[in-house]
Amino acid sequence: MKKALILLGCPEAPSQTPMAVYATYKLTEMGYDVHVASTPSAMRLLEVSDPEGYYVKNKVDIESCLENLEEGSFDLLLGFVHKDAAVSYFVTFYHILNTNSLAVVFEKDGELLDKFIKDVQESTDATIISARAYHNPTPLRVKFDRAVSKL
Amino acid sequence: MKKALILLGCPEAPSQTPMAVYATYKLTEMGYDVHVASTPSAMRLLEVSDPEGYYVKNKVDIESCLENLEEGSFDLLLGFVHKDAAVSYFVTFYHILNTNSLAVVFEKDGELLDKFIKDVQESTDATIISARAYHNPTPLRVKFDRAVSKL
Repeated sequence: MKKALILLGCPEAPSQTPMAVYATYKLTEMGYDVHVASTPSAMRLLEVSDPEGYYVKNKVDIESCLENLEEGSFDLLLGFVHKDAAVSYFVTFYHILNTNSLAVVFEKDGELLDKFIKDVQESTDATIISARAYHNPTPLRVKFDRAVSKL
Repeated sequence: MKKALILLGCPEAPSQTPMAVYATYKLTEMGYDVHVASTPSAMRLLEVSDPEGYYVKNKVDIESCLENLEEGSFDLLLGFVHKDAAVSYFVTFYHILNTNSLAVVFEKDGELLDKFIKDVQESTDATIISARAYHNPTPLRVKFDRAVSKL
């Protein structure tokens, strides 16, 4: 079974937790064994958001995940990027895993959005989808669906 | 079967959608038929957050819900309040339904939080739970669990 890793950073954007559940659902439907690595606060939101663990089966602390990571651990890396710290995590995981990678970049501020896209482009060859999204998840969801349909 | 109505306003706070799913789950477990009335953007987040409708079975637009509302339509009103508009919705629904009501007030700014609590207190006799919550849902979840255990 193919394995996918979803990275969640600081959960300040209201669309991150809903989109994380959606991405997990979608990739699971596509046959991936999906693991979600996140900061403690992002994980608490995920737990409240899916109290029975119906969608998200495998959750792990992002630092513990990083410690045990090696090339080949996952077949797909999907990172949510809307902070500098999230860019760093994504780039780090990308270079260790050396696999098919997708960065989902979102920010309501256009200049910051461009900066995060540039940061990811300069350090990786990952596929990037982006939107000036804050509390409307639709533009991200549509682009995400299109990107994963090409996997 | 007892019926509960959950009100969702503007979804700018990252904990609103996760807490809405959690509240729906909890009240459903307690035997309520739960309906969620929300603005269009809050509903889009809810749909992405629960793509199979596993937790949230009944969703309705908040304006349509209001048009058809009358005393006795629901046995419990639960409102998420973190904007002036949400205070207005809660107070309006409260006075039409005239039933057991709970306001979940959250804001990261302490002064605004106090203002919303005062606004709700001045216009209703609803039970109020509150927290200076933004992206950590735990304080709200714990207070919510305690409040519903007394229903």
